[in-house]
Amino acid sequence: MVRLLGIDPGLRFTGWGVIDVEGNRLRHVENGVIATNSADSVPDRLKVLHDNLHMLIERLQPAEAAVEETYVNRNGAATLKLGYARGVALLAPALAGLSVAEYGALAVKKAVVGTGSADKKQVEMMVRRLLPGVEVIRADASDALAVAICHAHHRASARHIAAGVRMA
Amino acid sequence: MVRLLGIDPGLRFTGWGVIDVEGNRLRHVENGVIATNSADSVPDRLKVLHDNLHMLIERLQPAEAAVEETYVNRNGAATLKLGYARGVALLAPALAGLSVAEYGALAVKKAVVGTGSADKKQVEMMVRRLLPGVEVIRADASDALAVAICHAHHRASARHIAAGVRMA
Repeated sequence: MVRLLGIDPGLRFTGWGVIDVEGNRLRHVENGVIATNSADSVPDRLKVLHDNLHMLIERLQPAEAAVEETYVNRNGAATLKLGYARGVALLAPALAGLSVAEYGALAVKKAVVGTGSADKKQVEMMVRRLLPGVEVIRADASDALAVAICHAHHRASARHIAAGVRMA
Repeated sequence: MVRLLGIDPGLRFTGWGVIDVEGNRLRHVENGVIATNSADSVPDRLKVLHDNLHMLIERLQPAEAAVEETYVNRNGAATLKLGYARGVALLAPALAGLSVAEYGALAVKKAVVGTGSADKKQVEMMVRRLLPGVEVIRADASDALAVAICHAHHRASARHIAAGVRMA
């Protein structure tokens, strides 16, 4: 059994989701959203994000992390702000000694729905189907669970390949 | 006397500089550059950046930090990467309990050279003049010292205003 943490970062809302993986079986552990107050300074908001990620890693002890590589077509200032949050989302698990994988939105959709052209609703529906009984607070948390599922999928394939190489 | 840390962040090179301020007098303490290996994963590079900033804050014990708000006109991916580094540069001093100020390139140039239209060479020359005997390793470190000088300037003005208000 391996426990995976998925993160969908944002300065305002960062979704997170933890799943357990055993062979092909997935089990939902917990999910949530870290919100920061836009009235606070950016360094303080990044500290809130870091401290919350740090606490949940300590509490739930995931073995590996995966972060969604959000795409942005907005202005430079908005991209920079997203970068701050992503930087902290990549750093916090690395500081805790976890390996950190990154997946683009396309890879996540393919892994969860089977096609890169899936929309947000389909991803959310498949997350609910793959993790029976899951309740998600906000779409960000559902996206984070989707990244964790994507990582479960990819690390299984990587293991198959590695096993094949070892046997050859 | 107050000790200030200036940071000019970047994923490849992050410049830093520490100065002591007493009234109008500035004294250079130390400067340097944190380099990360582009062959390493982004989370690992952010960890190197964080750990180095953390260590130098522990060692030199600055009371306040100032970070340059670098402007970017490049593509979204480059902006996002700069955002990661800036996020970590804002986070590390905040985690250590320091106040963190942000200054745009224009404010830094105005504070150091007296005009926002100054070029990089002029800023570097004025940093050397304001901090006699300083040796800088790379331009990034000189820029970091310039941010620290800018912060010294602005916090002095803020104190004058605060003092004025108290006296009124």
